[in-house]
Amino acid sequence: MSKRQPPATAAVPSLPNINTSRPRAGTFERPGSVRINVQGAFIVDDDTPGSPPRQHSDTKDIRLPYHKTQVSHIAVDIGGSLAKLVYFSRDPNGNGGKLNFKNFETERINDLIDFMDRLMNGSESVLLPEQDESTKEEIKRKRRRDGLHVMATGGGAHKFYDKLKDRLGVEIYREDEMECLIVGLDFFVTEIPEEVFTYSEADPMQFAESRAAIYPYLLVNIGSGVSMIKVSGPQQFERIGGSSLGGGTLWGLLSLLTEASSFDEMLGMAEHGDNTAVDMLVGDIYGTDYGRIGLKSTTIASSFGKVFKKSHEDPNSIANKSNAVTDGNTSESIPPTTAVDRRKRFRQEDISRSLLYAISNNIGQIAYLQAQHHNLEHIYFGGSFIRGHHQTMNTLSYAIKFWSKGTKKAYFLRHEGYLGSVGAFLRTQPMRGWGRRYSTGEADREAGFRPTMGKGEKKKEAA
Amino acid sequence: MSKRQPPATAAVPSLPNINTSRPRAGTFERPGSVRINVQGAFIVDDDTPGSPPRQHSDTKDIRLPYHKTQVSHIAVDIGGSLAKLVYFSRDPNGNGGKLNFKNFETERINDLIDFMDRLMNGSESVLLPEQDESTKEEIKRKRRRDGLHVMATGGGAHKFYDKLKDRLGVEIYREDEMECLIVGLDFFVTEIPEEVFTYSEADPMQFAESRAAIYPYLLVNIGSGVSMIKVSGPQQFERIGGSSLGGGTLWGLLSLLTEASSFDEMLGMAEHGDNTAVDMLVGDIYGTDYGRIGLKSTTIASSFGKVFKKSHEDPNSIANKSNAVTDGNTSESIPPTTAVDRRKRFRQEDISRSLLYAISNNIGQIAYLQAQHHNLEHIYFGGSFIRGHHQTMNTLSYAIKFWSKGTKKAYFLRHEGYLGSVGAFLRTQPMRGWGRRYSTGEADREAGFRPTMGKGEKKKEAA
Repeated sequence: MSKRQPPATAAVPSLPNINTSRPRAGTFERPGSVRINVQGAFIVDDDTPGSPPRQHSDTKDIRLPYHKTQVSHIAVDIGGSLAKLVYFSRDPNGNGGKLNFKNFETERINDLIDFMDRLMNGSESVLLPEQDESTKEEIKRKRRRDGLHVMATGGGAHKFYDKLKDRLGVEIYREDEMECLIVGLDFFVTEIPEEVFTYSEADPMQFAESRAAIYPYLLVNIGSGVSMIKVSGPQQFERIGGSSLGGGTLWGLLSLLTEASSFDEMLGMAEHGDNTAVDMLVGDIYGTDYGRIGLKSTTIASSFGKVFKKSHEDPNSIANKSNAVTDGNTSESIPPTTAVDRRKRFRQEDISRSLLYAISNNIGQIAYLQAQHHNLEHIYFGGSFIRGHHQTMNTLSYAIKFWSKGTKKAYFLRHEGYLGSVGAFLRTQPMRGWGRRYSTGEADREAGFRPTMGKGEKKKEAA
Repeated sequence: MSKRQPPATAAVPSLPNINTSRPRAGTFERPGSVRINVQGAFIVDDDTPGSPPRQHSDTKDIRLPYHKTQVSHIAVDIGGSLAKLVYFSRDPNGNGGKLNFKNFETERINDLIDFMDRLMNGSESVLLPEQDESTKEEIKRKRRRDGLHVMATGGGAHKFYDKLKDRLGVEIYREDEMECLIVGLDFFVTEIPEEVFTYSEADPMQFAESRAAIYPYLLVNIGSGVSMIKVSGPQQFERIGGSSLGGGTLWGLLSLLTEASSFDEMLGMAEHGDNTAVDMLVGDIYGTDYGRIGLKSTTIASSFGKVFKKSHEDPNSIANKSNAVTDGNTSESIPPTTAVDRRKRFRQEDISRSLLYAISNNIGQIAYLQAQHHNLEHIYFGGSFIRGHHQTMNTLSYAIKFWSKGTKKAYFLRHEGYLGSVGAFLRTQPMRGWGRRYSTGEADREAGFRPTMGKGEKKKEAA
């Protein structure tokens, strides 16, 4: 069983533990949320304004130098394609700790659960199926006594609820996906310096000033599909629209059209592509621009619009074509081509870039139209589709700027894929059904009932 | 030279001739347009309300039983993928005549020009390159004396202007594309019975009552790309938006992903497909619906959203997957697959249906958002993407109904691909720079200067 091997890159942090601290200056609080001391929080990396954006999928940890206490839970957002995990780990040298970010393919749900299992054991060992039941039950009881629990959101929180509960043996608290997205976004926008930025080719990654009044805004979350959420205030939101043309569409089509086998390989290909080899531009149709309605000759009139034509061209002779009056039907008129022949006529890089443009532009246009209708000026783009990829961000930014004539602005986040899981992480609640709206007061009372230390802590001492 | 063969399906109508008639009851007039006697006009086919829609690309002629005189021009709308031709031909038995509709791939511009050449000669002979220059010049001079001319619109009217003029030797009048689209639509809506219809699976092809007050409306023209035009009155219009995800995108991607070699073959495949084999539904993510925000489990969350996952599955063993913490990168974890392997895992029919849904839904949503912003109730869908295909129309209708909560309505046309060419056909003007705004009066004066018969007419008598 491959389960026995530790994951290739799995860090083994100190065990999350209970937070019994009282609020402090710089403590991040919101109704029902765990207290995270964000004083002096910073993102652990070397990005600086104007520097090229990070490697696509390389998500930086967030150092919390003053958060001394530990956290009794881990949070996961299980989407259609990716499961995003957030957990806290202490600094071995006692300088606070950090938030860790990891993602797994949802397809590999078992890898995710093994990893969570290890986090709870504070070791590389997992509860193996063949392990005897009583031992497993003992470990699970201990976890519950320690107050360990999982905050889960996204569709997978429901689809895999029983599996998670059974394998880990702790409470799984399910949180509403949209709610978590906006809680997470609010946290990043208000609490984490150098998290939010604007992007353009001319001006890559300009960090945004954190604004006191962030509402209202539009959140466009691009995962496998796209959700558009109008946010009017904390906990005040409405899903106003979406699109089925999202990351899943790009990843799916490029799996069939290129040899790329990962999202990042696909984005890498797009970087070296020329979309004009497959896209039909206004200039290809008009021979010039269409000035009267302000369409430049370089505007993309039809994504992949050159492909049908080029696919059915007889490469040996353009002149020697039959006179058949066709109706898009070329089979009887020129030597028929197979899909294999046709694909050979196009570069994978060009196809990747064209599709990335098409989907990003489309999302940008729909986002603009929704923002226009709901009179929203600030548009935040989140979700695992973006991955800090500069062409993607540039296209989304440009679409918003173009359609809104500069009246609306696109914002991005360095942890764009983790809004939901961070939101779930912050929505934690203690074990005994504790009404959120009284959180702070209750939290202090509640603290008394709970162990002040978790297994990991003991382990630390023993070590 | 294949040019010598007549086109497979090329009819040889009597030569278009000059229209010197005075207005009559039932005569269709608009400033600057040729007079077409539309009295008793009807579409030549057997479609009846409720009957299955016509074969996709089979465009019915329009009989004009009372239009005795002839027409000195042919009209063409040359788009990015297709060139749409409209011309008048007389009924050999003298019962008026009819409007004929034909399309060619723009790629085959020479076939189009040969066909127009034959129309002007009223015979199968064309002006061959090897024909001696003086003969050719004589024929061309004759054509000009006869007042033969071409009304051209679409991007190709500009791109191929010189080629058309040189090969045919007659005046090529270029008309604005958007203007022609709405002139053509107005003609169909107001003058042709049983042309406009609504569509739904439950209620296929319900002909719409022709409305006296047709303005304002939104025209969504779907060719290679998509144009959205707000029409407030005759000649009053504005292109308010569009999309690069149109017919060209469907035809291009399906050329690479299926063995279909014509637009109709692609639509035929879609009819036998099951999109849920490639699309990720809300139910696939949640295991159920997402009631709180009103997403049914059958809603498409991500078009092609299942493909990446299925593409990289190890078919031999699901359990035996590595624990590698991946980031959408599976190459190191399971036996790598090639694009060829991956494509084998999906049916071409399912891919076709998914893509047809994705593009139609997307156009429907953007059309709704534009109609909402501009407060337009009636949305007409035109263009060669539709081709009378019931899934396409059903998807567009459903999208408008769904997003507008039934407040807006989608309309279709049986000549949806010919709005621009019919518009150009109606925008004709006599030879000597004749200001449109005085058309009627001028027309009567003008008539005197023009031959009352064209070559074709003489030919008829001689025969």
